[in-house]
Amino acid sequence: MPVNPANVLANLKELRALTADDHGAQRVAWTPIWLKAREWFTTKLQGLPVERHQDAAGNVWVTLKGKSQKALILGGHLDSVPNGGWLDGALGVVTSLEVLRAIAEDYDGHPPVTVRLVDWADEEGARFGRSLFGSSAFAGTHSIAADRNRTDRDGVRLEDALKICGIAIDGVGAASAEQQSAAAYLELHIEQGPVLEAIQLPLAVVLGTKGVERHAITFHGQEAHSGSTPMAVRRDALAPAAKLALEIRAIAGRHKDAVCTMGSVKTFPGIVTAVVGRCEATLDQRDLDSKVLATMYREAREASVRFAAEEQCTVDWSRIWNIEPVPFHPELIELCDEAIRETAGASHQMPSGPLHDAAEVSRAGIPTVMMFVQSLNGISHNKIEDTKTEHLELAGTAFATLADKAMHWIA
Amino acid sequence: MPVNPANVLANLKELRALTADDHGAQRVAWTPIWLKAREWFTTKLQGLPVERHQDAAGNVWVTLKGKSQKALILGGHLDSVPNGGWLDGALGVVTSLEVLRAIAEDYDGHPPVTVRLVDWADEEGARFGRSLFGSSAFAGTHSIAADRNRTDRDGVRLEDALKICGIAIDGVGAASAEQQSAAAYLELHIEQGPVLEAIQLPLAVVLGTKGVERHAITFHGQEAHSGSTPMAVRRDALAPAAKLALEIRAIAGRHKDAVCTMGSVKTFPGIVTAVVGRCEATLDQRDLDSKVLATMYREAREASVRFAAEEQCTVDWSRIWNIEPVPFHPELIELCDEAIRETAGASHQMPSGPLHDAAEVSRAGIPTVMMFVQSLNGISHNKIEDTKTEHLELAGTAFATLADKAMHWIA
Repeated sequence: MPVNPANVLANLKELRALTADDHGAQRVAWTPIWLKAREWFTTKLQGLPVERHQDAAGNVWVTLKGKSQKALILGGHLDSVPNGGWLDGALGVVTSLEVLRAIAEDYDGHPPVTVRLVDWADEEGARFGRSLFGSSAFAGTHSIAADRNRTDRDGVRLEDALKICGIAIDGVGAASAEQQSAAAYLELHIEQGPVLEAIQLPLAVVLGTKGVERHAITFHGQEAHSGSTPMAVRRDALAPAAKLALEIRAIAGRHKDAVCTMGSVKTFPGIVTAVVGRCEATLDQRDLDSKVLATMYREAREASVRFAAEEQCTVDWSRIWNIEPVPFHPELIELCDEAIRETAGASHQMPSGPLHDAAEVSRAGIPTVMMFVQSLNGISHNKIEDTKTEHLELAGTAFATLADKAMHWIA
Repeated sequence: MPVNPANVLANLKELRALTADDHGAQRVAWTPIWLKAREWFTTKLQGLPVERHQDAAGNVWVTLKGKSQKALILGGHLDSVPNGGWLDGALGVVTSLEVLRAIAEDYDGHPPVTVRLVDWADEEGARFGRSLFGSSAFAGTHSIAADRNRTDRDGVRLEDALKICGIAIDGVGAASAEQQSAAAYLELHIEQGPVLEAIQLPLAVVLGTKGVERHAITFHGQEAHSGSTPMAVRRDALAPAAKLALEIRAIAGRHKDAVCTMGSVKTFPGIVTAVVGRCEATLDQRDLDSKVLATMYREAREASVRFAAEEQCTVDWSRIWNIEPVPFHPELIELCDEAIRETAGASHQMPSGPLHDAAEVSRAGIPTVMMFVQSLNGISHNKIEDTKTEHLELAGTAFATLADKAMHWIA
């Protein structure tokens, strides 16, 4: 079932020419450029024996009916962050289209199972701060109450932006109807990290998306004059924060693939002549194993309390956000691994740090797996995001092989 | 030579009532409230056999002629920071006035040496960012070129603010004429730190003002996604900054009375989901010994380079400001120590972390010493700045005793 790599590349370049400017891709969901991208994609369906419709949450579904109603779903998202790259999300959609085309040709329009392509609405959440919008509506995990009052930076309400795109905010839950007969979900995505490049492999099977614990941590000490306050009597709120910034590396280091990040540190009053009275930091912790994640959270919290006590300070924690790990389906992981080995000789298994629509699909109980293709320099969400042409071609072949295996697995 | 402590307290309270609001003292130099404070002070000279004039830099001099032209100078400053305390600067001026009054009475208007009181102009630098304005003009260390273009937050130029107060910016250097016949300089000030309160002593002799090395330090790493970037390949610019924040405590700890402070840390991009690509910190280091100061600066710099290398980062240093330590006069230190012991039973010797006008006077080669009186809670530059009444009274007595000793030392 050969896909045409030239089509994948030509379509990605056409899309970039249509929707990027000097600063990168501008396909932000619920904006005119995003709608233009979707319109362009519709023209690419011409000649295919498929049905296309938009669901209640704005996801676009393209269905090739098979002998069985059981459906294999292939997905991605055409939306991007502002000043984004040409591959994040779009690679999945464009490659899935070529796989769909190859299946239609191979089986003369009648594959053993139904094959559907989905272009998820607003994966990035770039405009309203709500990522995985369409896939969470599909999965039934979306909470309209929490999102109704979101506004963009110009004060436009999410509800009104949806309306312009033909979506009624109170009806998005109806997208869960698309779950019917769904038997498996496959998604191809760029890695967005440096792992595959470092080990010089083109492709990886993704074991799941890591759970995330995200907290704001505030250390309280005593502001004091930098000249008149002896070292011994200081209650410097920067000191426990510095200790924690170093300790989280040891906490993550005890577990394979776990990560802990202190991304923001703010000091108050934050002037050169004052001992820090208050220090605000953020902590982002991720792992695929919920027990590991819970352990890391507990260890960081205990360490912060210990460091605060050592420095005669106090500490407060406030949860910003968290999500459970979402492990993918073991049999699909095995099929994906096979498909990669058959295509590229060697495979690699890794969790995904970033979230993806596949996590929502998996949470809905639909067997799911993702495939990663190597990113250059680990850079994404940036106009310099890139992947070698030969790796994009290998990805197309491997993803088509996986789709074929998945069809037989479903049948 | 008894001073009248009731006069000191009454005058400080009168000044506070005249120049403070609900947020504290508002005697910011070159403003109407400061001019009002100085006008008030002039009325307090009535009946004293003194000459008063303002010098070319705005310092006010009150002179009681003695049998010798050699002059003992007693000083302080009436200006305050915005929302300041009632004692910082004003205590020195108001106590010096009572000492001058006592000397005039004791010697029937003809003391053995000339005694002068100086109210320095703009010690704080609160409005234009140039502290020790008047005393540095007196000392001849003022550079008009660097200050000519200073503006306040409303865009008013220093030059124009001076003009309103009768000062021509190009002429301030002429204030050095006041150095003529100066034989010793004494200044009483609140400690502004927690040392005397901790050891339960009311008074200290000040050994000098610490030198200061003040730098901006920037660590450069690599911004990266907190989810997709394994710990092992990160170049986290926060890590060397955290190590340095802890190491400067060891660097200071090797020297008595030395201090090192990291008062500001900023992370870039500074978001919860990104490994820190750039971290900007400030370092303020102080000691009374210039060799110790140089050692601490070198050690911090070397540590930063080592930490940057350990974390695959780089580091840049940029000097914000520095000043040499200014040790006070050994014989006056001894006289001050005696005066304190005679008054309060026990003395304490300590350097000053904050700068004072006395440092400029000492740099002009005039034998100088300062006396500190205990601050409550180590707090200054704040409306809650305070000192016990009995300590203010002891300070008046000890400072008068010191003045008497200094007169005989000069004679």
